[in-house]
Amino acid sequence: MDIYEALYTTRAMRRVKPDPISTDVQAKILDAAIRAPSGGNQQNWAFLLVDDPAIKGELATMYGECIDQLFKTIYKDQAEAAVADPDGNAPFLKMRRSVESAVDNFADYPLFLFGFSKGDRTGGSIYPAIWSAQLAARAEGVGSSLTTVLAFKGDAVPDLLGVPGDSGWAMSCCVPMGYPTGKWGVAPRRPVHEVSYRNQWGQPVGFETPEPLWSSD
Amino acid sequence: MDIYEALYTTRAMRRVKPDPISTDVQAKILDAAIRAPSGGNQQNWAFLLVDDPAIKGELATMYGECIDQLFKTIYKDQAEAAVADPDGNAPFLKMRRSVESAVDNFADYPLFLFGFSKGDRTGGSIYPAIWSAQLAARAEGVGSSLTTVLAFKGDAVPDLLGVPGDSGWAMSCCVPMGYPTGKWGVAPRRPVHEVSYRNQWGQPVGFETPEPLWSSD
Repeated sequence: MDIYEALYTTRAMRRVKPDPISTDVQAKILDAAIRAPSGGNQQNWAFLLVDDPAIKGELATMYGECIDQLFKTIYKDQAEAAVADPDGNAPFLKMRRSVESAVDNFADYPLFLFGFSKGDRTGGSIYPAIWSAQLAARAEGVGSSLTTVLAFKGDAVPDLLGVPGDSGWAMSCCVPMGYPTGKWGVAPRRPVHEVSYRNQWGQPVGFETPEPLWSSD
Repeated sequence: MDIYEALYTTRAMRRVKPDPISTDVQAKILDAAIRAPSGGNQQNWAFLLVDDPAIKGELATMYGECIDQLFKTIYKDQAEAAVADPDGNAPFLKMRRSVESAVDNFADYPLFLFGFSKGDRTGGSIYPAIWSAQLAARAEGVGSSLTTVLAFKGDAVPDLLGVPGDSGWAMSCCVPMGYPTGKWGVAPRRPVHEVSYRNQWGQPVGFETPEPLWSSD
C-alpha cells in the first residue's frame, strides 16, 4: 500500500467484525510500531495485546462507564449544543454514534493494543509508535481507533492488566482493532490553510488546499 | 512509497542540507498531517511553519541552551555512565552526537514545523498528526526529527512565534526538516517480544521477531 493511501484513509474505525487477527498480522503491526523514533531513542515503551474474553468483558464494562463520563464532562457543552441544533452539529453526532457503537460491541473486538510509556511527559515518544501500529494495521486491512478515555478509571485498567503499581509504567492508550464492516475513505477535515500559519501565529501559511491532495481515483 | 518502507525508515534525521523545501512539498506534508484522527475528531491542532532566518537564528540559540539543560538534567545519569563506559553506551553517544550536530546547524534547517494543541492532555491527538507529517516528509525525501526540548524555555518560544498568551494553545513540539546528507535505513531497536506482552503484564506476547519483518532487500 502506498504511504499516502495509508495516511489519508486511516481514520478512527470503530465498527469491526469479531473475526480474529492472526499472530502474523499482529507481529507486522508491532514490528512496525517499534521502528518509530522516541525521545533520545530511549524506547521507553511497552505494548500489551489483549484477546482474552474475560479481560475483554471487564474492559467493556469500564469503557462504557468512561464514555458515559466523557459525554457528561469534557463533551458536555457539545452534547447540549447537539440536542439544541442537531443539523448544526452533525460531525459531533456522527462521532458520538460511532463511539456508542463501540460501547455496545466493545467485548467483541478481537484484539486490543495497549500502549504504556515511562517518563514520556508529552506523549511525543509513545504516540508515533502507536500511530505506526495503526497505519501498519491499515495496510493489513485492520481498522483501529485510539482512546485514552479508560484513564477515567485511574489504576483500575492497569490493575486488571497486571501492571505492577510501582513499575513507573503509565497507560497511554487503548487501541481496539478489527476488520471493518464498512469502507475505508478520506475523512473530511478543516483544510490546512485554516489551521496553519507561517513564521508568526495568524499569518497565512502561503498555500491553500481546499481539496485533499490525495484521492483513491 | 510503500507504507512499510516509510514506517521502517523514518528515523530521527538531524543532519540535513540547507536546500529549501518547496511549498508544494510543504502542502503535501501538512495535508497528510490533518488526515490523522484526533480525540472526538475535535481537530484541536494548529501548525506553524518557520523559514524566516531571523526567527531561525533566535530558535537556534534557545535550542542550544535547552539541549545543554537536557543533558545536565534528564540525561545526566546516562551522560555520566557514558563517560565511565563509552563502549557500553554506544547508542546513547550516537544519539548525543546527532543532537550536537543539530545544535551546531540549527539555524541552517530550511524549515521547522511547530505543532500546537488545545485540551490534548495526553498528546494522543497532536502526535499522530505530527508523525503523519514526518512520514509524508519521508515519502518526499525530506528528513525530520521531533523535539519537545524547547519547552524548557517556557513561553519564550510561543512568544517568539506570536502565539497569544491567553489563547489556550500549547506548543507540543518542534520538527526541524530538510533533505538528509546521509542515507535512510532501518534503525536498530529492542525487538517486539522484549517489549510486548499478552493479556497480562510480563506474559509472552506469543511470537518473536528477532529481525525486522521489512527490509529494503
